[in-house]
Order: sequence, then structure tokens, then C-alpha cells
Amino acid sequence: MPKLILCRHGQSVWNAENIFTGWADVELSEQGRNEATTSGKKLKEQEINIDIAFTSLLKRAIKTTFHLLDESDQLYIPVIKSWRLNERHYGGLQGLNKDKAREQFGEDQVHIWRRSYDTAPPQQDETQRESYLKDRKYELLDRRIMPESESLKDTLVRVIPFWNDQISQELLAGKTVLVSAHGNSLRALIKYLENISEEDIINYEIKTGAPLIYELSDDLKVIDKYYL
Amino acid sequence: MPKLILCRHGQSVWNAENIFTGWADVELSEQGRNEATTSGKKLKEQEINIDIAFTSLLKRAIKTTFHLLDESDQLYIPVIKSWRLNERHYGGLQGLNKDKAREQFGEDQVHIWRRSYDTAPPQQDETQRESYLKDRKYELLDRRIMPESESLKDTLVRVIPFWNDQISQELLAGKTVLVSAHGNSLRALIKYLENISEEDIINYEIKTGAPLIYELSDDLKVIDKYYL
Repeated sequence: MPKLILCRHGQSVWNAENIFTGWADVELSEQGRNEATTSGKKLKEQEINIDIAFTSLLKRAIKTTFHLLDESDQLYIPVIKSWRLNERHYGGLQGLNKDKAREQFGEDQVHIWRRSYDTAPPQQDETQRESYLKDRKYELLDRRIMPESESLKDTLVRVIPFWNDQISQELLAGKTVLVSAHGNSLRALIKYLENISEEDIINYEIKTGAPLIYELSDDLKVIDKYYL
Repeated sequence: MPKLILCRHGQSVWNAENIFTGWADVELSEQGRNEATTSGKKLKEQEINIDIAFTSLLKRAIKTTFHLLDESDQLYIPVIKSWRLNERHYGGLQGLNKDKAREQFGEDQVHIWRRSYDTAPPQQDETQRESYLKDRKYELLDRRIMPESESLKDTLVRVIPFWNDQISQELLAGKTVLVSAHGNSLRALIKYLENISEEDIINYEIKTGAPLIYELSDDLKVIDKYYL
């Protein structure tokens, strides 16, 4: 029976400081590392054997994957990394403290950017954009599809092709698959998997650092779901 | 210009205790971790951009890869793991203290096992063999090619197909490639790459935890080599 394990990375250093992160490549905090190692130990205790893992190009997700697999003694499985699992791109808000953003743009506007399904945040300024376009991680990514600011809807549009072409293929082969990613790239997956409405998905909360396990039917219908 | 970076993992807990390791999946020691993080920092200082990494299925090599890429801020590159890069399989010697082995089998015999090109160590006993055949790492590996005890020659025979089909392909495309592996799987690669004789390769020493960089021509002839 296919099994899908979703894990949102634990606390990052910018989560801890209440700063918009998006594609900024910040470290896990010590708390974030502990969340991942604790969950890795639980995977081991419950003898959950993972066949393949997918993660983003951002180190907070890659390190979460590493700790989950290290503590559960299955570092040897294949790990595939893709920009398509990156967090929602927060455009010009990246690097900005959330309270400062509210002062600057108003509480209502910031609420819309955070909680509307299809409103993208403001674009990056020229300095941000220049260093973003030079980032080696994305040097092979066609500029025409490289996001510069995304709504949750935009995020879903680039996550789902990766689900269809890669993640779901492994599940359809009956494997146990770990997807170790971010709040909004996981929301996009969950919306698609559970057919959740646009209104409901924006308020759907996923615990950090805690594997969410989906037991699936052979045609990938959800039979059961629970946190590890 | 293609660049090949070979890195032999740093000290493992069994290296530290003078025990034959082979395919036993032991941890890096603290010294081993330090060797890897120090080398990762040097990669960063010298701005060496790696395009793709290959490693074995053994955690001491996987963790060395992780520390090299983490410290040089390039965790996002693809990392491909294969049993073909595993250490030489030391058969029945695995887990045995080297001094004890000398007492049991005689100094000369142990020297031959360690330093002959084509003499394989004794087979594993039934208990070792049973747990080896149940190891999840190798569950998809055809039993007819799964090594149970290898000479350096046997190691070379299973490493070189991986060089030809995967590693060399990336180099021929002009990439910078990291191979993070083990003393004997790297000896096999170096023998093939530099066309070293059977007599010379058995005494060829590779430093631990220190990246060995080969500058290669377009058709993969060695132009220059040096430790980072």
C-alpha cells in the first residue's frame, strides 16, 4: 500500500525572528534541528521504512530530510531535490520583519498577502532581484518560469507537475515516499491530494517538524491520515 | 574544463579502534566529522563550485558528503548514492580487530589480504552472512553480483562500470564532480584514471577527509592533480 509522509521543516532562524522567508535560504534554528531529530527517532521506533525522499533546494528542508533519515538509519535512500518543492516565493517581503511589514503596508494588506489564495506579494526590489538571478541554485532554471513573487495558487501551479511526474509515480509503484518541504508547497500538495477548496486551504495548518502520514489506495485516494 | 574531486571519508569509529570495516556501516568519529567540515570550509574559501556529487550507501561517506556540501553552502546540488562506490568488502574480517586477525591468521596472511591485488579475504560466517543478506540497503541488488568478500581487483570490477556509465558522463559534459567514497573504491578509480599498475596501486595512499582535485582534459586525461 502506498504511503506518503509529508514533513514541514522545523523552525528556521527567520521563523524565530518573525521574518518573511520564502526562497531566502536560511538555516534551521536549534529548535528546528531538534524537531527533525525527534521525528527521525520516532520513524525508527515505529520502523517506518522510506523508499525515496523528495525535498526542495533550500537548506532548511534538506537538513530536515538529513536528520529524519540519519536518526532513522536510512541515509542511503535516494533523495531528489527540486526547486518545485521550494517555499512560496514571498517577493519583496522576503527578509522583512512581519510587524514592520504591517507598519509599512497596513495590517489588511499584509493579511491579504498571507491569506488570500491568489494575491501575490509585491515584487523584489532591484538589489534583491539581482542577487536572486545570480543564485547558482537556479542557474539552469528558465527565467520565464523562475518565480519572482507567488500567491499560493502560483505555488500550486509549479508544485503539481512535480507531483504528477515524479512523486506520484513512486507512490503508484507502491513505495513509501517522504516529501520534506515547506508550509505552502505542502499546502499545495495537500489541496490537490485531498481536493480541498481554495477557501479552506489558506487556513489549513501543518505542524512543523512532525511527519504527517497518508495511507493511500492503489489509485492514490486517501484512506487514512495521522501525525506520526 | 572538467574537474574531478575525490574525497576519502575521514576517520570512522572503527578506524579509531583499528577494526576491519569494509561494508559495515559505522559512524564517522568526531575527528572524521572535523576533517570533513574543515575541507568543506576550504571548498568555500577557494570558491570551488561542485555540480554533482556521487557517494556510496555507507553513512561515513554520505555524512562526509553532507559536511563538505553544507560547509561550502552547496547542499542543493544532486547527490547520487550507489553500492558500487562502497568500500571493498572485507568478508569474514569485518568487525575483527586487526591485531586479533594477525594472531588468528598470522601476520603474513593478513598482509596478503590487505596488500595483494587479487586475493579476497575469507568469507563471512553464517551469522554475518544472514544479517548482510537482510540489509535493506541491498534489497534490490541481484544476489549474483552482491559481493561477499572482495580483493581490490573485485572492487575495481564493480566500481568501473559506475565510472563509465555515470561519473565520466558528467565530466565529459564539462562539470565539476565530487566523488566522496572510501580508500579502496577510490584506489580503483585512480588506478583506472591514471593507468597505474597492479603493483603500484596496492601501496597508493589517499589522505582521509582531504579533497584530491584532478584537472582533466576534455577527453578525461589528467592534466594536474593536487590536494585542496
